[in-house]
Amino acid sequence: MEFASDNASGTAPEIMAALGAINAGYAPSYGSDPAMGRVRALIREVFEAPEAEVYLVNNGTTANSLSLATYCPPWGAVYCHDAAHVEVDECGAPEFFIGGGKMVKVPGADGKMTPESLKAAIEATPHGFVHSVQRAVVTLTNTTEAGTVYSVSELQALCTVAKDFGLPVHLDGARFANALVATNASPAEMSWKAGVDILSFGGTKNGCMGVEAVVLFDPKKAWEFELRRKRGGHLFSKHRYLSAQMEAYLTDGLWLRLARDANAKAAVLEAAILSVPGARPLFPREANMVFAYLPRGTHRRAMAAGAHYYLWPHDETLDGPDDQPVSARFVCSWCTTEAEIEAFATLIRGRD
Amino acid sequence: MEFASDNASGTAPEIMAALGAINAGYAPSYGSDPAMGRVRALIREVFEAPEAEVYLVNNGTTANSLSLATYCPPWGAVYCHDAAHVEVDECGAPEFFIGGGKMVKVPGADGKMTPESLKAAIEATPHGFVHSVQRAVVTLTNTTEAGTVYSVSELQALCTVAKDFGLPVHLDGARFANALVATNASPAEMSWKAGVDILSFGGTKNGCMGVEAVVLFDPKKAWEFELRRKRGGHLFSKHRYLSAQMEAYLTDGLWLRLARDANAKAAVLEAAILSVPGARPLFPREANMVFAYLPRGTHRRAMAAGAHYYLWPHDETLDGPDDQPVSARFVCSWCTTEAEIEAFATLIRGRD
Amino acid sequence: MEFASDNASGTAPEIMAALGAINAGYAPSYGSDPAMGRVRALIREVFEAPEAEVYLVNNGTTANSLSLATYCPPWGAVYCHDAAHVEVDECGAPEFFIGGGKMVKVPGADGKMTPESLKAAIEATPHGFVHSVQRAVVTLTNTTEAGTVYSVSELQALCTVAKDFGLPVHLDGARFANALVATNASPAEMSWKAGVDILSFGGTKNGCMGVEAVVLFDPKKAWEFELRRKRGGHLFSKHRYLSAQMEAYLTDGLWLRLARDANAKAAVLEAAILSVPGARPLFPREANMVFAYLPRGTHRRAMAAGAHYYLWPHDETLDGPDDQPVSARFVCSWCTTEAEIEAFATLIRGRD
Amino acid sequence: MEFASDNASGTAPEIMAALGAINAGYAPSYGSDPAMGRVRALIREVFEAPEAEVYLVNNGTTANSLSLATYCPPWGAVYCHDAAHVEVDECGAPEFFIGGGKMVKVPGADGKMTPESLKAAIEATPHGFVHSVQRAVVTLTNTTEAGTVYSVSELQALCTVAKDFGLPVHLDGARFANALVATNASPAEMSWKAGVDILSFGGTKNGCMGVEAVVLFDPKKAWEFELRRKRGGHLFSKHRYLSAQMEAYLTDGLWLRLARDANAKAAVLEAAILSVPGARPLFPREANMVFAYLPRGTHRRAMAAGAHYYLWPHDETLDGPDDQPVSARFVCSWCTTEAEIEAFATLIRGRD
Repeated sequence: MEFASDNASGTAPEIMAALGAINAGYAPSYGSDPAMGRVRALIREVFEAPEAEVYLVNNGTTANSLSLATYCPPWGAVYCHDAAHVEVDECGAPEFFIGGGKMVKVPGADGKMTPESLKAAIEATPHGFVHSVQRAVVTLTNTTEAGTVYSVSELQALCTVAKDFGLPVHLDGARFANALVATNASPAEMSWKAGVDILSFGGTKNGCMGVEAVVLFDPKKAWEFELRRKRGGHLFSKHRYLSAQMEAYLTDGLWLRLARDANAKAAVLEAAILSVPGARPLFPREANMVFAYLPRGTHRRAMAAGAHYYLWPHDETLDGPDDQPVSARFVCSWCTTEAEIEAFATLIRGRD
Repeated sequence: MEFASDNASGTAPEIMAALGAINAGYAPSYGSDPAMGRVRALIREVFEAPEAEVYLVNNGTTANSLSLATYCPPWGAVYCHDAAHVEVDECGAPEFFIGGGKMVKVPGADGKMTPESLKAAIEATPHGFVHSVQRAVVTLTNTTEAGTVYSVSELQALCTVAKDFGLPVHLDGARFANALVATNASPAEMSWKAGVDILSFGGTKNGCMGVEAVVLFDPKKAWEFELRRKRGGHLFSKHRYLSAQMEAYLTDGLWLRLARDANAKAAVLEAAILSVPGARPLFPREANMVFAYLPRGTHRRAMAAGAHYYLWPHDETLDGPDDQPVSARFVCSWCTTEAEIEAFATLIRGRD
Repeated sequence: MEFASDNASGTAPEIMAALGAINAGYAPSYGSDPAMGRVRALIREVFEAPEAEVYLVNNGTTANSLSLATYCPPWGAVYCHDAAHVEVDECGAPEFFIGGGKMVKVPGADGKMTPESLKAAIEATPHGFVHSVQRAVVTLTNTTEAGTVYSVSELQALCTVAKDFGLPVHLDGARFANALVATNASPAEMSWKAGVDILSFGGTKNGCMGVEAVVLFDPKKAWEFELRRKRGGHLFSKHRYLSAQMEAYLTDGLWLRLARDANAKAAVLEAAILSVPGARPLFPREANMVFAYLPRGTHRRAMAAGAHYYLWPHDETLDGPDDQPVSARFVCSWCTTEAEIEAFATLIRGRD
Repeated sequence: MEFASDNASGTAPEIMAALGAINAGYAPSYGSDPAMGRVRALIREVFEAPEAEVYLVNNGTTANSLSLATYCPPWGAVYCHDAAHVEVDECGAPEFFIGGGKMVKVPGADGKMTPESLKAAIEATPHGFVHSVQRAVVTLTNTTEAGTVYSVSELQALCTVAKDFGLPVHLDGARFANALVATNASPAEMSWKAGVDILSFGGTKNGCMGVEAVVLFDPKKAWEFELRRKRGGHLFSKHRYLSAQMEAYLTDGLWLRLARDANAKAAVLEAAILSVPGARPLFPREANMVFAYLPRGTHRRAMAAGAHYYLWPHDETLDGPDDQPVSARFVCSWCTTEAEIEAFATLIRGRD
């Protein structure tokens, strides 16, 4: 009953196999491996972006931080949702890579900015006023931190606001695949066609061992990005092992299959949770994460029985009356099993 | 005939097997995996350092930069050898992590500082003078970038100079194992017993896929190090895959066997090279790297036949008279084969 | 009719005279001038803090940024009021000096935090959680940006919250003198006795040409502060000219006289403004700044006639109906004259 | 007998008078004062550069650091002379403002690079190699730290090397006026006509209280420079007092008169020093600084009698035999008097 995070899941067998296969013999280091050439071609094809530049790094914090630093000067404002990973969960990594910067929080229900809230936040940063940080970049997250999904038209509307102010857009796609299969959009529609300039394309949470691609739809920034990656300690020496993961991930639609599976499991889990008396959603369930209220007593019983997940937000607590609703986050991944969902369902229904 | 770098070698089978074995099921992320507990215990045992704190990162640039940043304030001087990786090969990563800092170059033959050259460099930084950067940390490299090895007593002498000035010592041990087996010292003797405060303990170049341990012999710095690692994007989400590599590496002396093998291969290669008329050493061969002069014509013939290695230093060139001696670097690893050494030997001897 | 800012005022004659007097002959540079010794002694006496260390810099942004950087690591959270100068008006200077950092905004009416809002903000930063920035320092402003004044007991209450979490406290005292004379507190009561660890003690806005003292009540941080000041380009070579200003400012209570005068003028100005039909306060007037609503038509007429002041907040506008109330900020200084207040009063009352 | 530094000298009477004159009434703050407009026009005229942008800061460290940061990315190499102020005397301020960077030392006798040494240094930084810092900017100093002066043709030759590599050039002109009058070049010839892109134009050492102009001959960088200045705490609130100094300095050739006077005094001082038996130059005397050897016993006697100057380089010492030659630096300024030179001459000649 492991619903703590898709980061606690393992590596998909196809990707393990690819690591084994790439291991024989020598390979040029630092990204000159032949597999990286294939990854580049695959990403360009998948995203219908023949000019895009592609770089691999080990995790999402890195992909996000390097992307933002490439578009935000040290005196720049980054517009992000209140709950964005870059604001809440990265120990100031974006500010480290940017060499300053200021995360400007944009409110919005269900983990989503609205065009209005984004516009208001940008306008609140005085333009061309030397005493203020300067408007620099908008960062969106899809799947959001609330487990909801921006539709392509929602993304377009937000990117339009950014473009109206001349601002580039970064998309944190740590769970890009989950958003994609939830909407049936194409990768291009959900990125550059909507107005995204740079994408953190997640692999780790969706079955890889540890790899994310950064896709620069504007290749003019590529060399700067390479230098920032090296200087941040994020250029792998035995790079073939990043390439092999990403290559297998993108081959034969593995990445989409894994995401579809995770989303489907979450739908089943959601149904089980909401069938508990007193349960109700915290956010709409649209991808692989369920945010819902359960009675505190139910949480206590579930956790005591070994279920792993987080109360959400972090200031929720098990202390208090049994029947009070307490919200929590439950994450499914490609390796969530029906059996563990069923076991959990049984547990929270309180039947033995 | 692959002698370009130990970074071009693959992952040892024992380590691949460990990755396969750890893959099943869920594991807590971000370093809370049980395997990390075992790694910590193993490092403490191997180094006879029960209080040491241990962290895993993906490569040597990161291990070095985080270590130096932990001991050097933004206004500090880092004393390193002229040819140190931190000075020459990291695109300013130490300065990025330090938030400034100044690499002060310490000269010395064969890739080694001497106590005299180190003392002179430290003294040249005025003490307590607000207009100057401040003396902060000494960083040594063993195996050195010239392929030579500091003996334990040489390390002690250098650390003594550092301590006389109240300075901590970092050891870049990207090839620590190769130095260790070259000297028959114990890990403790070659680190904290000699005066080392923080160690980059290499795995990647010696058969791992991509992992280095940073060993803090002074655990008071541990929490700061953890924050710096996270903030640098170097806390792996699926951390178990770093742990598994390091655990296998340290189990049953694998790390020492791999290093012994690489060193032994280099001895064979050295003999083959020096048997060529006109060949002579550039630096003494003491670990897994051979630095030697060969006639330019021999280099041309070898490279044309597909041998991979670097002319060294980087401003050497294949342009010029055939019989002129040109220096080069040849690196062996655990996966260098006798067959390829023999093929290379045949090639450079010019016999068909 | 100059009410735009106390920064637009000139230098008090006593301070100009001191600059003339100190000009003769040579003086040691970089803070070794004898006048700096006298300044140090004066500050220690005025603040009843014989151990305090004192440094002079040119402006408030610098005093604040260096102070915060001395107490906040690059991964730290700085708790400041929503409207704090360090958050709004310094182009990210604190983040630059800190090398990262995150300004965490604490809400509160009339420019003031409350113990409750401060406590909530601190608690919202997870303690000892590596994925989050870390609780680092609280910064208060007195006189606040809303022109209100924290009483000594209010300051004590806020410092107590900070201390309960083990956090140091910085006080932005760009208008410290105005707050002091408004409350009749002693300098010690309004700083270290209340719990302040480091103080930006303003001179520029209150009659100096350009000098602020940073007072470190904990002298252990002094050397680090000196290095940060030098490295930021803020160690003056001909330092005597900073010293002379501060010495004159502190001599014979000049600083208090100037502040009393500015506050008194603001009281007169406030009365004139509030006598206009439709006028009302935006914030309580407690020191040298008046924040009030006037009908838009009145603003138009005043500005057209050459009155200088800012609509406040910055998104207020002269566009719209004449009779709508629009808020503005009016600042008095030691060189505001009764004549210009009277002229302004006449103007806004609409009498010729 | 004050020869320690031109920073120990006072402010010229014309400049003091200008400060007094500008003090009356209000003035817009933060660089919007009318006097700044006049300064901009004066600089453009003096430099025959109608497009140049001009900013004022308080000291040379700031002017240099902001200039270098404007032209050097965090991963860039700055080519400077071994003895450059930016390398030796600024506590790492350039690295702070750059956010990293690496000072690459270029050797050369008498404080001067040569085209050959500069070319060799640039070429030693591998081009387009991601593991290395990248070639970014060349910084020259005129008058040099050795008191020598680059002629216009020498500057041209160095700038030509820089331009051949596509690199911009910064000139540290803390003693620009002294170099100018030593060569009879025009300001334009010694700056942009020779190939300089950005200039630190010194005022402080040559009679101002504390002001340097940064002249951007390429105005495209102006807004970035403004933001960097603000963010570094270097935008003065009561800016008129910087403007007034610079305006007076540039009016009626005051700056050139002051520099001519300082250089002339240094010539007299040099003659006095070299007349001592055993004395000889350390560097050629070309501007307002004398670097020379005197017998150690002579130094002892002079210092005991109250003469102020520095042994040079800093590791010279008064400990040792009396008759051994020991080198020192003696600086003249506009306020050096013939009387003190004569007193010193008498002292070192040993006649009573």
